[in-house]
Amino acid sequence: MKVKYLHTMVRVKNIEESKEFYCDLLGLKEIKRKESEEGKFTLVFLAAPNQEDIALELTYNWNTNEIYSEGRNFGHLAFEVSDIYEICIRLQKAGVIINRPPRDGRMAFVRSPDNISIELLQIGNPLEIQEPWKSMKSVGHW
Amino acid sequence: MKVKYLHTMVRVKNIEESKEFYCDLLGLKEIKRKESEEGKFTLVFLAAPNQEDIALELTYNWNTNEIYSEGRNFGHLAFEVSDIYEICIRLQKAGVIINRPPRDGRMAFVRSPDNISIELLQIGNPLEIQEPWKSMKSVGHW
Repeated sequence: MKVKYLHTMVRVKNIEESKEFYCDLLGLKEIKRKESEEGKFTLVFLAAPNQEDIALELTYNWNTNEIYSEGRNFGHLAFEVSDIYEICIRLQKAGVIINRPPRDGRMAFVRSPDNISIELLQIGNPLEIQEPWKSMKSVGHW
Repeated sequence: MKVKYLHTMVRVKNIEESKEFYCDLLGLKEIKRKESEEGKFTLVFLAAPNQEDIALELTYNWNTNEIYSEGRNFGHLAFEVSDIYEICIRLQKAGVIINRPPRDGRMAFVRSPDNISIELLQIGNPLEIQEPWKSMKSVGHW
């Protein structure tokens, strides 16, 4: 029996907001989109560059005002990045709260527009510890 | 800025039960384990064979009786399999409920021991539609 991890699906209330977060800010790319008139939903598949065999599937249900709740059995999605300070600055400038700042030059947590917890990890060795991150307090939970 | 999808983390109440489900039944392999005496947790990283660049991280917190709640912002994890009937039979024999049976020879949904929704998708073309799957009713939600 062969098995392959294909994707992780999250529900989103707004495709454009999600694409701004996952694509413009985090650097993922849209690789496929499917609209279902019958099911009244749109699926948008995102992937990191050169990693198209594993996707993040966004499900947008057309006719709902549901605010998607958060559970504890799901923890987070983790992405490795080449410069954790640079990406945190980019996120901050776009108004994203850095819930767990990269005080150690290595790890940060933020939230997607639908409250999916996102872990950012520095590739390789931690960066040199520096302000303003060093003294920055955590905010909320992640 | 480079970005790479590293892992999806889920919280589990019992490592052995989770390993039975994800490894013995679904076919993932343990690729790394980390215990933290200080944080009182164990992290177990699982991956599909030949796909070790993307992991499913299980977090087991030692001193908690918390039953991990389920939210709606997270949807499911999807795995492609080489024989969807064979894996559903294996899951059934182990007592796993097939919430959405593969009536179409293509897609099924089950739940992990911690209620993480798992989508199983047949690789390539759907299998021939056949009983008992064809007439099997869905159970619960997924």
